[in-house]
Amino acid sequence: MRATLLYGAADVRVEDVADPKIQNPTDAVVRIVLSCICGSDLWPYKSLPPTDNPRHMGHEFLGVVEEIGSAVTGHKPGDVVVAPFVYSDNTCVYCQEGLQTSCVHGGQWGVHGVDGGQGQAARVPQADGTLVRLPVGEDSELLPDLLTLSDILCTGYHAARTAGVTCGDSVTVVGDGAVGLAAVISAKLLGAERIVLMGRHRVRTDLGREFGATDVVAERGEEGVARVRELTRGEGTRKVLECVGLKDALVQSFGVVRDGGTISRVGAPQYPEVPFGFGDFLRNIALTGGVAPARAYIEELMPHILDGAIRPGRVFDRTLGLEDIADGYRSMNDREALKVLIKP
Amino acid sequence: MRATLLYGAADVRVEDVADPKIQNPTDAVVRIVLSCICGSDLWPYKSLPPTDNPRHMGHEFLGVVEEIGSAVTGHKPGDVVVAPFVYSDNTCVYCQEGLQTSCVHGGQWGVHGVDGGQGQAARVPQADGTLVRLPVGEDSELLPDLLTLSDILCTGYHAARTAGVTCGDSVTVVGDGAVGLAAVISAKLLGAERIVLMGRHRVRTDLGREFGATDVVAERGEEGVARVRELTRGEGTRKVLECVGLKDALVQSFGVVRDGGTISRVGAPQYPEVPFGFGDFLRNIALTGGVAPARAYIEELMPHILDGAIRPGRVFDRTLGLEDIADGYRSMNDREALKVLIKP
Repeated sequence: MRATLLYGAADVRVEDVADPKIQNPTDAVVRIVLSCICGSDLWPYKSLPPTDNPRHMGHEFLGVVEEIGSAVTGHKPGDVVVAPFVYSDNTCVYCQEGLQTSCVHGGQWGVHGVDGGQGQAARVPQADGTLVRLPVGEDSELLPDLLTLSDILCTGYHAARTAGVTCGDSVTVVGDGAVGLAAVISAKLLGAERIVLMGRHRVRTDLGREFGATDVVAERGEEGVARVRELTRGEGTRKVLECVGLKDALVQSFGVVRDGGTISRVGAPQYPEVPFGFGDFLRNIALTGGVAPARAYIEELMPHILDGAIRPGRVFDRTLGLEDIADGYRSMNDREALKVLIKP
Repeated sequence: MRATLLYGAADVRVEDVADPKIQNPTDAVVRIVLSCICGSDLWPYKSLPPTDNPRHMGHEFLGVVEEIGSAVTGHKPGDVVVAPFVYSDNTCVYCQEGLQTSCVHGGQWGVHGVDGGQGQAARVPQADGTLVRLPVGEDSELLPDLLTLSDILCTGYHAARTAGVTCGDSVTVVGDGAVGLAAVISAKLLGAERIVLMGRHRVRTDLGREFGATDVVAERGEEGVARVRELTRGEGTRKVLECVGLKDALVQSFGVVRDGGTISRVGAPQYPEVPFGFGDFLRNIALTGGVAPARAYIEELMPHILDGAIRPGRVFDRTLGLEDIADGYRSMNDREALKVLIKP
């Protein structure tokens, strides 16, 4: 089959790789119908040193079950399914608590002999635990929306949930990327009254307004902090959803959070240390979040998509075939595209 | 009156200072019956550069109201009262939420013309908001226990509450100082089933066991982390209460916290940055806590003292007169004493 490999920074190739096969009784093989490129794929795209041992890319996909291992009881060939961005058994002590990202039998796509998601098919370990059936056909118009259950919608929702966003709350979302926009959707779902979106890409922040942002702050750094405080009686917002992963975005988050408030970060941190000393200790700021256990939220969020209440798939502003995926990476990296859908 | 002044590291003097007087209608003057030395007093005791402008020390006291300003309606001369370690109006938007440490009219003892707590008396700003009446006489045997409402019991409780300690929970308390021991009491009050106390001072950890610690780990650093993980199926505990304030203690806290768990720190951070990057992000660790709004917890905790269910005053292992307070500082700094009670 064809799959996406990264040989180094800006060196994306689509090549022939081994067809996926059942290796363990708990595996399934899924033919991929839709995949996409993640903002987090851009970190290695920017920085991976040249290598002869390329990285298998992609961790967001949905498709059709083609084959199942002998121990798989929850899925059958022909099922349309979505895969969260890590696989998990969904039965271990962590999974039972909704922390599938710490599953004792779980792991990541694209490493240790597991396929990536940006290809024509994938072997899915722990298929019963990992895959969630979608009650639609593979030609459904909702597929792009449903694909966001794989990562970004659940990641934005994880930010809002771990921050404790609740009815009437005030929230700042830092970052107008796909996850930031999903965080806006999520904050609104949880009843936030005030949602300030910090971002400076007009097309994205306009979409953010449609998703529920009540205010947009284009300024950054100290100027951005001052602007958010102006909007909130000088106090800042009770919750801040940090959806970038850079230290500047985190510093900005500390600047806009209200005393006693919570910052939840879901942008993968590109820094080893957090500036969080005595001053913010005196303000009783909490820092939560982390990598999102998407699997935990899929059943809860799917109905909102199925009934049309939310349209997270609107973050996809470009669609490419698998063979053209390198241009998708380039266009996201150059900020020409917000998020690129891939049709294998 | 006599009061405690710090002129530099290890230079504690008791001197005559101006008698407190009502300055604002919201003030009260309190004659101090009991005070004490805090672990946090040792930071300037260790490090303050020599100065001719000495620091007024002490922020934990209880006593008898002697005089009230014209606007004070909640207290009257003769009332026995305890003061939390910051003053606050208890009516502002933050106070109403239980975050009196961010009170818009609040402040600290010993600065900006406000008396410290280690003296014979103090002017109490925002007396109605700050002081809480104690339903005992000034000769009550419960006074040392009730004095802990001023800081350490509420600080330990803040750690447990912000960490979300709940029935059946597993908790590690890092630090066997007075706050750590108060955190043990608090975790037990909130129903924790497993309470691991990390500390290596036998007398203190023995008291910790009496307070409710189920396990004591004397090892530190990686060895201590390994020991706690041994005790918890390799997982660590769901909640960690960091009651020291040093970076090593925080690093140890990250080591013993379970995936998806929460660290609450109430030891004043003696570091500007927290090592909290991608690895702990993947584990979904939350970092909460902060300076304790003691005022928020006093009414809730006091009944447990009055009915004898908890005896937090047992942390006081030495009692001195005010004139001898310098020896109290020395003995706490040398770890001869756990916490020193001062009778002015």
